[in-house]
Amino acid sequence: MPAGATHQIVHERLEALYQRHRKRHGDKIATYYSPGAGYYKLDEPGPEHDRFAISLATTDGDIYHAGDHDHSFALQSISKVFIYGMALETHGRAGVLERVGVEPTGDAFNSISIALDERHKRPHNPMVNAGALVTTDLIEHGGAGAGLERIVGVMRRYAGNVDLKVNEDDYASMLASSDRNRAMSYLMRSFGMISQNVEENLALYLRHCAIHVTSGDLAVMAATLANGGVNPVTGERVLESRYVRDVLSVMHTCGMYDFAGQWAYRIGIPAKSGVSGGILAVVPGKLGIAVFSPGLDEYGNSVRGIKVCEEMSERLGLHVFATDEENALLEPAGHS
Amino acid sequence: MPAGATHQIVHERLEALYQRHRKRHGDKIATYYSPGAGYYKLDEPGPEHDRFAISLATTDGDIYHAGDHDHSFALQSISKVFIYGMALETHGRAGVLERVGVEPTGDAFNSISIALDERHKRPHNPMVNAGALVTTDLIEHGGAGAGLERIVGVMRRYAGNVDLKVNEDDYASMLASSDRNRAMSYLMRSFGMISQNVEENLALYLRHCAIHVTSGDLAVMAATLANGGVNPVTGERVLESRYVRDVLSVMHTCGMYDFAGQWAYRIGIPAKSGVSGGILAVVPGKLGIAVFSPGLDEYGNSVRGIKVCEEMSERLGLHVFATDEENALLEPAGHS
Amino acid sequence: MPAGATHQIVHERLEALYQRHRKRHGDKIATYYSPGAGYYKLDEPGPEHDRFAISLATTDGDIYHAGDHDHSFALQSISKVFIYGMALETHGRAGVLERVGVEPTGDAFNSISIALDERHKRPHNPMVNAGALVTTDLIEHGGAGAGLERIVGVMRRYAGNVDLKVNEDDYASMLASSDRNRAMSYLMRSFGMISQNVEENLALYLRHCAIHVTSGDLAVMAATLANGGVNPVTGERVLESRYVRDVLSVMHTCGMYDFAGQWAYRIGIPAKSGVSGGILAVVPGKLGIAVFSPGLDEYGNSVRGIKVCEEMSERLGLHVFATDEENALLEPAGHS
Amino acid sequence: MPAGATHQIVHERLEALYQRHRKRHGDKIATYYSPGAGYYKLDEPGPEHDRFAISLATTDGDIYHAGDHDHSFALQSISKVFIYGMALETHGRAGVLERVGVEPTGDAFNSISIALDERHKRPHNPMVNAGALVTTDLIEHGGAGAGLERIVGVMRRYAGNVDLKVNEDDYASMLASSDRNRAMSYLMRSFGMISQNVEENLALYLRHCAIHVTSGDLAVMAATLANGGVNPVTGERVLESRYVRDVLSVMHTCGMYDFAGQWAYRIGIPAKSGVSGGILAVVPGKLGIAVFSPGLDEYGNSVRGIKVCEEMSERLGLHVFATDEENALLEPAGHS
Repeated sequence: MPAGATHQIVHERLEALYQRHRKRHGDKIATYYSPGAGYYKLDEPGPEHDRFAISLATTDGDIYHAGDHDHSFALQSISKVFIYGMALETHGRAGVLERVGVEPTGDAFNSISIALDERHKRPHNPMVNAGALVTTDLIEHGGAGAGLERIVGVMRRYAGNVDLKVNEDDYASMLASSDRNRAMSYLMRSFGMISQNVEENLALYLRHCAIHVTSGDLAVMAATLANGGVNPVTGERVLESRYVRDVLSVMHTCGMYDFAGQWAYRIGIPAKSGVSGGILAVVPGKLGIAVFSPGLDEYGNSVRGIKVCEEMSERLGLHVFATDEENALLEPAGHS
Repeated sequence: MPAGATHQIVHERLEALYQRHRKRHGDKIATYYSPGAGYYKLDEPGPEHDRFAISLATTDGDIYHAGDHDHSFALQSISKVFIYGMALETHGRAGVLERVGVEPTGDAFNSISIALDERHKRPHNPMVNAGALVTTDLIEHGGAGAGLERIVGVMRRYAGNVDLKVNEDDYASMLASSDRNRAMSYLMRSFGMISQNVEENLALYLRHCAIHVTSGDLAVMAATLANGGVNPVTGERVLESRYVRDVLSVMHTCGMYDFAGQWAYRIGIPAKSGVSGGILAVVPGKLGIAVFSPGLDEYGNSVRGIKVCEEMSERLGLHVFATDEENALLEPAGHS
Repeated sequence: MPAGATHQIVHERLEALYQRHRKRHGDKIATYYSPGAGYYKLDEPGPEHDRFAISLATTDGDIYHAGDHDHSFALQSISKVFIYGMALETHGRAGVLERVGVEPTGDAFNSISIALDERHKRPHNPMVNAGALVTTDLIEHGGAGAGLERIVGVMRRYAGNVDLKVNEDDYASMLASSDRNRAMSYLMRSFGMISQNVEENLALYLRHCAIHVTSGDLAVMAATLANGGVNPVTGERVLESRYVRDVLSVMHTCGMYDFAGQWAYRIGIPAKSGVSGGILAVVPGKLGIAVFSPGLDEYGNSVRGIKVCEEMSERLGLHVFATDEENALLEPAGHS
Repeated sequence: MPAGATHQIVHERLEALYQRHRKRHGDKIATYYSPGAGYYKLDEPGPEHDRFAISLATTDGDIYHAGDHDHSFALQSISKVFIYGMALETHGRAGVLERVGVEPTGDAFNSISIALDERHKRPHNPMVNAGALVTTDLIEHGGAGAGLERIVGVMRRYAGNVDLKVNEDDYASMLASSDRNRAMSYLMRSFGMISQNVEENLALYLRHCAIHVTSGDLAVMAATLANGGVNPVTGERVLESRYVRDVLSVMHTCGMYDFAGQWAYRIGIPAKSGVSGGILAVVPGKLGIAVFSPGLDEYGNSVRGIKVCEEMSERLGLHVFATDEENALLEPAGHS
């Protein structure tokens, strides 16, 4: 079968998947708003409610879209993934482990308390805010400005898109509701876990959370991790091979907030979600998946995003411990 | 027996008490230092180690001293007592209860976590830092400056000493290690528990913690509470009668950090300690007690202070639930 | 004024108090049922809903009643008070403190978890189930039977009623829903906190919880504690004077479940409640109070019981730290 | 290269691995004893200290050994893996998820507290004792005896060894120190999480923990999971294919006590350890690994077991998210 025909099949199946989920949740999008955490409020019907996009990028560099794939949104917590990789490259595995753990935590993201890993005197893992504040601190040593430039540069190479940049409106909005992150930073500073300049570090942290991407960008970023750290479209190495497994490991056990255990069990693909409604999922050696749909569940994860990933994992046998791999959607052409 | 002779007996007994405790702990003062909390470090021998004073003030206005009673030290957490009283006068019992609870908390003062009362969405009680940050917030409505002036004015009337003032060196030192309080403040602001100006409120909070007193001042302040809110030396009312019991109640159940339950059981006198080594204890209707000795135990309470109060409670039957009141030290004249 | 006239005034005021509260909560009694804890279910209207009694016993031996004062009910958690006294007499203060703490605990009584005092490896205090299982263990050394006989004997002397006995139906009912106590016992046995025979100790514990009293009995029991350990009606000493303050201290800080801090603040009288709807309150030197009303609030305390005690405390100035004592109800004769 | 030569190479490398680790920890084996948990005490030098075995079984059915591979030991917590698989076959994924979660838990195995998943009212996952008590309850419906027979039968098929059986001495020893499990059972029964017969279920649970295996048995059991549920030696299906990924998923996130997050990060192989010193690790599609060495670390995991698995994972690229697979030990012949 010619490649063009294969692409057509994949595209049709993806469109069908998109349509199934677009309709199913049409008027029932879960919404969420936590004043303490500054999350998006979406309980009034509006255009943002209806946003929905799925993008796939293979490790061969093929890209498929469905829905609003050219609509941009803030990375939010998804940036933690790339920052962790940068911290590993800067300080090595052992150096980073001293400062940030790799243990899942049962604390709900909207708890009224702030907790750190008592046993090891460090944040539990780099996928929660406390951990990402520390990894942000770990990669900034050039003073204000240089850190951000370096981070944006890395993000652009992950996405193969030189236009990625911080959305200053989103940044301003996050800054205005960042008291929990500020509290966490000062608590960590009181224990010497973070360096002196809390406000500068917080600003850098919020800026990389406010970098805007489309679902297409996000799928390529995921595919870069799936491809061992090399962007499959540009061919550029973005993350050292030896750190890819570290990044995927913490995504797998800690990437989906308090739903992480259930996600690892039911879907079984290393992933990270953000409160803007994005999910980035990585099928090593095969595929980067991006879903964008702003309706969130009680855990802070995109409702449609979870459903879409669950269906893809089941139908394509993408679960990391799946015994039967069907790969019906993507691989028929590859085998023909 | 003439009054002069009675005073002489009390003085001799107090001096004997002082000597017993001065010797007993001479070279074994417990010391404490928590980087996260900015507490005094006292593990090297020095003149501050040897400081020790006991002062008593009766509700009749008599005052007795032993030791370094003219040495001044920062109120630290003891200021929480008076701030709570001011908050009650400003907003009433119900108004304050909405914002600050009255439940003891089992969180150690040097915990790596920050916790608030999940059930009621407020600090557990006004004797912990979180609670006192809120009560400070509750009494300041005149903007910067006016709040402090009002607070210092109240403290002076409690002590009957117009010279009480903030020690700016201590304030600067506290400010330099106040990240946990800052973290707590931002966490509370994120839940709407505290007003906008976190740094100004923190400065006001730290300033009233940095007000310097002698053990003599502190004893009169305690006696004012023992006397139903009227300074027994100046005769001036400082706290409305109906709020005295509220202040004493929270001192009784929450005033001695994590040792509060044991203190209520063993010593049974409403009290509050501070990390500078002071303890203020109130025997309603009778006596204000002040002890100053900077060596602290694992709970953050003055080691000598606890021993002295325990001995006084036992010998004089001062426990709030004591069945046999001996009052041998203070009341012989009353029975003659 | 002659004594008879005084009694008449007190009786009338008590009846008025009873009527105010009988009406106020007539059809709105809070109810509670926890399957894991075996508490009474009262959400269907029934005769038990309407039960309501108040009894007072003075340290002079006078007794006043209103309502169903001859209706008997199980002591439930109120027995913990007397068992703690017996443990103190058997092992001394230090001996008991080694095994059971005196710190309030924030754990809700119906939590899905079981927690012990990690720091001291003992139950938090003798007013929670874990602590009372240990104090029960501490007083039983004669083997099965002797312990119960001794306990019932002590209870009878507190009440001055030789007919007090275990209600075997209530005991059977409690035994059938005692898995949490059983779990707690085995957990404590695993840490060596309790002796070998868990089931025998549990049976003894449940039997003393199932001892039936009337509100009149309970008021005299309270008055015995108010009177320094001597039953004011029979004149018999039931608890050594030196342990009375220990019992009252833990009642004061730990007696009302998670409402203890608020109770100490608002009502300020050492008290203990039980899930059968009884409250025992002790005004040292003056009065024993008993209220019985089975409607419970979210904390497990009698709704009417709290309201009645709050009104009495306010009107009569019974708060342990009250500055103005009105005592209008009980003391007019004393002043005439 | 002929198969015999390949086997020889693998055997030599395995022996070298064994020798490196045998020496390294010779006189420094970590030991552990928790009275509350009934764990083995090993702090006196003895023959059990020196026990050390490594066994590998490939999905092709090849088996390799080093050390004491014919010494048997109790499965202990490793049995949880197989019981979970049986529960899934009996009730389906949804049925089991209702009763037992799949979330990692931060509670230390020797905590003085007992905690359950408050949010979902169920044990956190099937790899902790509470969860395995429930899965044991889920598979027993034939009454006493039938359940055990069925379990032993399944274990024998996993190992391909008809001689596996319960070690009655170990069972008796576990039963004598099973108060925490008993406490957990009664707590769960109080919330309706477990069926009535606590003692029978506990006995069944302890009996399957007391089934004795050699490291050789354990390697074949692991290889059966690696082989999609089919014993690679006997060719018999032991677990339905669709449940293999569920079992591996919870092993991956929850199998190594509080070290689970670090194990998933550093070693990245689904595994389960037991306090007798065994570790079972599953490399899907390739390999079953068993290590036996009774010296335990602070988490309750075999010290040598972790070191051996870490070295194998690194050298052979076995990490589930490894990007470079070397497979130098096992695959040279396969490629020749």
